[in-house]
Amino acid sequence: MISAPIADRGLAETLFADLRRVGDDGVGVTRDSYGTGESAALDLIEAVALAHRLETRRDDAANLVVTMPGTDMSLPALACGSHLDSVPQGGNYDGAAGVVAGLIALLRLKEEGILPRRTIRLYGLRGEESAAFGRAYLGSSALFGQLSAADLATPHARSGRTLGACMRDVGAAMDRIGRGDILLDPASLAGWLELHIEQGPVLVARKMPLAVVTGIRGNVRHRSVECIGEAGHSGAVPRWLRHDAVFATAELLHRLEIHWQSMLGQGHDLVVTTGVLGTDPAEHAIARIPGKVGFSLDIRSQSPATFEAFHALFEEECRRIEEERGVRFVADRRIEARSAVMDTEWVARLRRVIRNLGLPDEPMASGAGHDAAIFANAGVPSAMLFVRNENGSHNPLEAMAMDDFMLGAEVLRLALIEGSA
Amino acid sequence: MISAPIADRGLAETLFADLRRVGDDGVGVTRDSYGTGESAALDLIEAVALAHRLETRRDDAANLVVTMPGTDMSLPALACGSHLDSVPQGGNYDGAAGVVAGLIALLRLKEEGILPRRTIRLYGLRGEESAAFGRAYLGSSALFGQLSAADLATPHARSGRTLGACMRDVGAAMDRIGRGDILLDPASLAGWLELHIEQGPVLVARKMPLAVVTGIRGNVRHRSVECIGEAGHSGAVPRWLRHDAVFATAELLHRLEIHWQSMLGQGHDLVVTTGVLGTDPAEHAIARIPGKVGFSLDIRSQSPATFEAFHALFEEECRRIEEERGVRFVADRRIEARSAVMDTEWVARLRRVIRNLGLPDEPMASGAGHDAAIFANAGVPSAMLFVRNENGSHNPLEAMAMDDFMLGAEVLRLALIEGSA
Repeated sequence: MISAPIADRGLAETLFADLRRVGDDGVGVTRDSYGTGESAALDLIEAVALAHRLETRRDDAANLVVTMPGTDMSLPALACGSHLDSVPQGGNYDGAAGVVAGLIALLRLKEEGILPRRTIRLYGLRGEESAAFGRAYLGSSALFGQLSAADLATPHARSGRTLGACMRDVGAAMDRIGRGDILLDPASLAGWLELHIEQGPVLVARKMPLAVVTGIRGNVRHRSVECIGEAGHSGAVPRWLRHDAVFATAELLHRLEIHWQSMLGQGHDLVVTTGVLGTDPAEHAIARIPGKVGFSLDIRSQSPATFEAFHALFEEECRRIEEERGVRFVADRRIEARSAVMDTEWVARLRRVIRNLGLPDEPMASGAGHDAAIFANAGVPSAMLFVRNENGSHNPLEAMAMDDFMLGAEVLRLALIEGSA
Repeated sequence: MISAPIADRGLAETLFADLRRVGDDGVGVTRDSYGTGESAALDLIEAVALAHRLETRRDDAANLVVTMPGTDMSLPALACGSHLDSVPQGGNYDGAAGVVAGLIALLRLKEEGILPRRTIRLYGLRGEESAAFGRAYLGSSALFGQLSAADLATPHARSGRTLGACMRDVGAAMDRIGRGDILLDPASLAGWLELHIEQGPVLVARKMPLAVVTGIRGNVRHRSVECIGEAGHSGAVPRWLRHDAVFATAELLHRLEIHWQSMLGQGHDLVVTTGVLGTDPAEHAIARIPGKVGFSLDIRSQSPATFEAFHALFEEECRRIEEERGVRFVADRRIEARSAVMDTEWVARLRRVIRNLGLPDEPMASGAGHDAAIFANAGVPSAMLFVRNENGSHNPLEAMAMDDFMLGAEVLRLALIEGSA
């Protein structure tokens, strides 16, 4: 079993404590995509990197890049990192763990005077979470020219300010991003290594501190579907004259859950979530038949055929309920994230490092999406390392043990040394 | 067929236009219970009454009272009126029509020099709508000592200020109301006559301008029920490990609707509404399994046995879903409004007046609740007159034709003359 130098562990603990402090919202941490909490996290990581005399810059998508130059500048660089934003009232480790792990790896290389052949770059990405703009992986998608005009025009869920405006606020080169320029040539990278907390309960159940990821689920989603019925007085309209948007939506969601169960029974990989649901506070009332309900829909699977099939069932059920109840369902644009397969050579290398450290090695698929899927689908050989984490993520109760994190950081460090040699 | 003097109609139109103006919220009218919009409406009606040299005062519950003294002060007075508050973004006639009708009746009596034997009082009641505090009929309930400490401690749905504080703000005698004093002796009133727009589609369907009301539905409601599950990442937690509050609530509401249908099929009088529904904007996200959903529940029937039976089904379904899904439903206190029967003599008198005017006479029950139910249950012989209205109420599209209103106002005037003679 390895044991990290006490200095590394102390530094990691300090970094996490400082990140928690700058993102503290009283309940959990909030590092809003392209907002103040996220920017504060980038500033914090950059300041530590600069204090240790590492080179830093912001790329054209306003992500943080920390660089350790290699001895052979003709070779493609090796990249690691993760994202620094969070959902509102989220946890401290989702995203940040991968950046902290990369930073302490670079600092130790520097301290030990190791000169890699390949340049190593650490990315502190922005905008991975979909809470603000519906679409996820914004910071990495921007690097590969994948933000459409519709994406950039999407309003922030709270402030209403568009994604494009929010990106401009933090210094992104909106002319290039708007044109769909490739800001980062995939051929310039020999690999993307992302350490991330597991966001589900699998490693806890298997009693394993780490696992290498083999593939990442894709998804199709609607940020907002509206059910439009007809408002009216709750006491005075008989059932047969009502067009109640809440009961229509309740039926739809209940039917979708039954379809989901039945597809699981047929062996499909699928999860379905309506995370946001609500009548309109500007017009709802206890004694008023609800005329309008909005909800989000998030459908995930490793198989595009599965999430397509489920999306088709969603549309069918909407049409059926519209006909029966005299309501309308109006969905905003479909947002898709492709599933991704991790690079077999990198997967093999990470697994070898894990086994060499005497740790259990059982690779797994990622149910959640990650920036690594964007890098992989852009053509960068990519791999991920999950660190055990209790209580899931996207909530303040996420709990990663520092022992597990230090093991993960060590695996990342060894893989970076091996991959850049 | 009668025709009202042109002066009355012009005055009614002016009053409605002025009421709309002072409550205008850009979408409909908002005359918040014990808030600025409601107070502005009371002030407006009072100013017109004073301009015509009628006596006015505010009673200890801060309602407006306009008085025309009778020649025999030993007789119980005759009261008419309705409420002057509205739901947010509601319509202009729900409530206000009854006050305007009463005012133009009093003004014409005065103008024609008719001296009633009984004193006639017009009430502009506050706080009839439940949108702000969950409980309805606050202004009339206060008169009969029926606001409990729990009622007075209820926070306003938006501002969070308690009902007691809001009532104090507009000058109510909170020491008396807090003690449950009877502010208005039911024996001091010979009757309560309330004109109100119909809030359902029955009169439109029957092509009748007016109908006398025979009884009023009661209800049982919860202002807020919370379904508490467990938040988590939408991609990473498999279905069997989820405790999804949205799917649990969708199943509950869908099951309740099926029970409702089946009770209707058995001939019960019943309406069920969940007007307010939503995940928590402070913590919800598209990619987060919803850990919490809140909703309101409003169950109405003319038969207390029916709404009790449905409430029992609601509790049963909650327990079953809790067991199956590992969620919890937590309901706030039950709020009840009793059903009420209208006074047979007043009903007969109003119907006679209607028939004498050559109008169709087909009495009906009121699906919605009204202050008249509070007066009736306190022991005041009470009656109501519905005026035809399109598009329901509690929305800005409510549409009462002035022809219909003037017929209703004339019926009220004739009934007041007959009843006070």
